[in-house]
Amino acid sequence: MSPSKVAPEGDRGWIVPVGGAEEKIQDQRILKKFVELSGDELARIAVIPTASELHDTGPRYVQLFRDLGAASAVALPFFERHDCDRVDLLDQLERATGVFFTGGNQLRIATTLGGTPVARIVRRLNAHGLVVGGTSAGAAILPEHMIAHGASGATPTAAMVQLSPGLGLTNRVVVDQHFRQRDRLGRLLTALAYNPFAIGLGLDEDTGAFIDPENVMHVVGSGAVTVVDVSRLGHSSIAEADPGVPICMTNIRIHILPHGGRFDLHHREAHPPE
Amino acid sequence: MSPSKVAPEGDRGWIVPVGGAEEKIQDQRILKKFVELSGDELARIAVIPTASELHDTGPRYVQLFRDLGAASAVALPFFERHDCDRVDLLDQLERATGVFFTGGNQLRIATTLGGTPVARIVRRLNAHGLVVGGTSAGAAILPEHMIAHGASGATPTAAMVQLSPGLGLTNRVVVDQHFRQRDRLGRLLTALAYNPFAIGLGLDEDTGAFIDPENVMHVVGSGAVTVVDVSRLGHSSIAEADPGVPICMTNIRIHILPHGGRFDLHHREAHPPE
Repeated sequence: MSPSKVAPEGDRGWIVPVGGAEEKIQDQRILKKFVELSGDELARIAVIPTASELHDTGPRYVQLFRDLGAASAVALPFFERHDCDRVDLLDQLERATGVFFTGGNQLRIATTLGGTPVARIVRRLNAHGLVVGGTSAGAAILPEHMIAHGASGATPTAAMVQLSPGLGLTNRVVVDQHFRQRDRLGRLLTALAYNPFAIGLGLDEDTGAFIDPENVMHVVGSGAVTVVDVSRLGHSSIAEADPGVPICMTNIRIHILPHGGRFDLHHREAHPPE
Repeated sequence: MSPSKVAPEGDRGWIVPVGGAEEKIQDQRILKKFVELSGDELARIAVIPTASELHDTGPRYVQLFRDLGAASAVALPFFERHDCDRVDLLDQLERATGVFFTGGNQLRIATTLGGTPVARIVRRLNAHGLVVGGTSAGAAILPEHMIAHGASGATPTAAMVQLSPGLGLTNRVVVDQHFRQRDRLGRLLTALAYNPFAIGLGLDEDTGAFIDPENVMHVVGSGAVTVVDVSRLGHSSIAEADPGVPICMTNIRIHILPHGGRFDLHHREAHPPE
């Protein structure tokens, strides 16, 4: 889905994809920053655990966000499509100042929430200032185009990645998570090769890409964000390549940005940590 | 070591790093092209099996090169430093039209041949037209700066790679092998971050980077060569980074080139397959 229209007088809310396995005990800077952006001691955080098949995932994040000082945190059990029509849950979602999608399987989120009031509310509220984040699968789901699944490896090959529609909060980026840990440059490059309009964000574990309302991405965490900019791509052979065969891509620009680094998604400029 | 000086009237020989596991039975296009460049039915190929601890590695390549039509092929058993003074072996080396280093451990090649007549002869003959190639460890050893060992992962971190002096046939490139198969972008980026003068060549298995006398690299094989050009690097934080911490690198240029692709190492220009 395309991003919702931002009201002329307002700002879009922050969009916060996290690479998975964010630190929950020692240095919780990612979750802490998420709570801050959501209003700190006034934050009301709605956790959407749809991606997970573990029933303690939602409650665990609720406890974490409360411990970090949020005014309230609730897990909204949207596990089946009919859950997405429950007025009691939708009311709680409407009152949230921050929404957080847990990890698991991004296709569970897409197939459960796609086309339901939940997706519509999150899109509308984000366009009007609501902070929306997610980790791992919950990160993948946020943009317009999502990597549903794919193979590992640094070299892009045709058909190594399956794209599908995400939540559509932004169409500027395609994100991939567990980036360093699962060797995903190839699949991110392949995803971008299909249509080089988007910017790829490869998120290491315990690393968040905090995209502000002006579309500047701020890196927070112990890993790095690999920014892949294919706007100057000289050539992509993906239209002709057979499955499994390496594709040709020239003039890819990459930036490796650790904590404190920034990337302006509009002007496509990288800024090292100060 | 720095590259030997090329005689003003002559051409340097081809330099042929191969990413390992090159096809030896079905589609032997890499080894075949190596034989062709070495003179085809006039080729006299010297195999240097120093990297390997398996005693059949040398004889196996000898058989392969003979089957591919070389006039002669011999394995020269330089396994200890004192072997590198054996006049009978050095005589055979001097008469070769192509030299091929097998895989194994590149530090075995460096520690056995470094500073011996073998290294001197290979360097001198390559500067005067001898074709020199190698696979895996035998590829890593060819340039001036070699990756001795390092960790896996797509994100570069300080101290993830150990550089050491190679044979010094060229100083334009640093090569890494088994590239897609062993997730080595991070270590190659780290190697380049130390001093961004060189170009990184990430070689997939069954893929050769055939560097011609004019420093144009031609890709041959079933994988791809990932060319990493850091000449426009905006920032490298490696001087200040602690071990294990992701380093910041901005404005890295990457080209993924499959079979038939070319890269001009002098002008730093990528050319897709025609």
